[in-house]
Amino acid sequence: MDILKDDERLDYLLAENLRIIQSPSVFAFSLDAVLLARFVYVPIQKGNIIDLCSGNGVIPLFLSARTKGKIIGVEIQERLYDMAVRSIQYNTLQDRLQMIHGDIKEIPQQLGHGKFDVVTCNPPYFTTPSKDEMNPNEHLAIARHEILCTLEDAVKASSQLVKQGGKVAFVHRPGRLMDIISAMRHYRLEPKRIQFVYPKHGKEANTLLVEAIKDGSPDLKILPPLFVYNEEGEYTAEIRKILYGE
Amino acid sequence: MDILKDDERLDYLLAENLRIIQSPSVFAFSLDAVLLARFVYVPIQKGNIIDLCSGNGVIPLFLSARTKGKIIGVEIQERLYDMAVRSIQYNTLQDRLQMIHGDIKEIPQQLGHGKFDVVTCNPPYFTTPSKDEMNPNEHLAIARHEILCTLEDAVKASSQLVKQGGKVAFVHRPGRLMDIISAMRHYRLEPKRIQFVYPKHGKEANTLLVEAIKDGSPDLKILPPLFVYNEEGEYTAEIRKILYGE
Repeated sequence: MDILKDDERLDYLLAENLRIIQSPSVFAFSLDAVLLARFVYVPIQKGNIIDLCSGNGVIPLFLSARTKGKIIGVEIQERLYDMAVRSIQYNTLQDRLQMIHGDIKEIPQQLGHGKFDVVTCNPPYFTTPSKDEMNPNEHLAIARHEILCTLEDAVKASSQLVKQGGKVAFVHRPGRLMDIISAMRHYRLEPKRIQFVYPKHGKEANTLLVEAIKDGSPDLKILPPLFVYNEEGEYTAEIRKILYGE
Repeated sequence: MDILKDDERLDYLLAENLRIIQSPSVFAFSLDAVLLARFVYVPIQKGNIIDLCSGNGVIPLFLSARTKGKIIGVEIQERLYDMAVRSIQYNTLQDRLQMIHGDIKEIPQQLGHGKFDVVTCNPPYFTTPSKDEMNPNEHLAIARHEILCTLEDAVKASSQLVKQGGKVAFVHRPGRLMDIISAMRHYRLEPKRIQFVYPKHGKEANTLLVEAIKDGSPDLKILPPLFVYNEEGEYTAEIRKILYGE
């Protein structure tokens, strides 16, 4: 198939008949991205949405099944940007989905401040380690470590891009809870909804979903916990529903 | 029975055969206090523990079953302090448990800084409302509203009282998550463990337990969620175990 390069494959996304180009050696989306795309509030009929640190475009693609609005994805790695562009073409979503190859720090100046109803971001999770601890695969290292984009960069850009009263949603590790909500408050994003994701009952949370409102009033809710696996090590019913629409 | 005054009653606490003096018109302990007393780390064999905003002494009494260390309770309301003193006497725990009638803001100066291994606090949950919204019962109003003690007062006093490397544990409402962890960090208390308590499956959390370490390194864990009621509206097995030792 012409649309695929190298070791890429065309994976299914959702029961919505979406397809996404992935590559084991470059980038494959995580459950976290899907959980964020399900967690965030989106206007159904219209609106402008932007996804930062978009990778292979999994969040824009997933969100296209939840909203008729326009969605922009921003990715700094050309190889991943290119995969996202081809996935959008394959799904013939070019009229609503657009990718920008660029640095999120420069996007607010490029697109203008306060233009988006919703901003999503699944940023690199790990602070930059020493060179010898870093993943030798540059694509994976940039996607996972704060090499080209720190958490504060991502929160700051989100705050600049979102309208007053608009929503900003991030997924991150629970260990960064303090950092993320401190950064959000610093940039006038008031956290309103947090959900913790637990691998299974009795285990500590390994994922944090948070949604803030630009210039919102303080009123934080902690949503019911989400469990990924049941006692048999299979996806729980709620995760299957999110992933496959079952 | 001479030990009881007015409408007071002598309630059971735990299966440990502890008893506690309560009064419907003055103060009765909440599940939250018991959850905090179970959540907090305590040294088993020895150590110095202090409980701020102690009410009728439920946390010191409960902790006396978990540690052989010495426990001080601080309560500003004389009526509640007096109930706590009589409960300690009734349980013949005077050698290990002591109550101080005083203002937590003055306790660090009185007892000295950095003397305690563990500090616990179940502070008033609500910011001070206008006079007409306030509970006309002064005892309940002071226990529930930040009239004599704000969250920041309680965090500051805790930080002063605890040793370096010692633990400070609070229970509060999830809506105050941002305020409590911001205040903790401000006073060099690094949050290390957070547990959310949910009334039942599928509902938002209504209680937050947090434990910090004085001058600890950032490394926050979100413990497994705790559910209070099952689908039948009865206490879950984990809550029964905490309350009754079943």
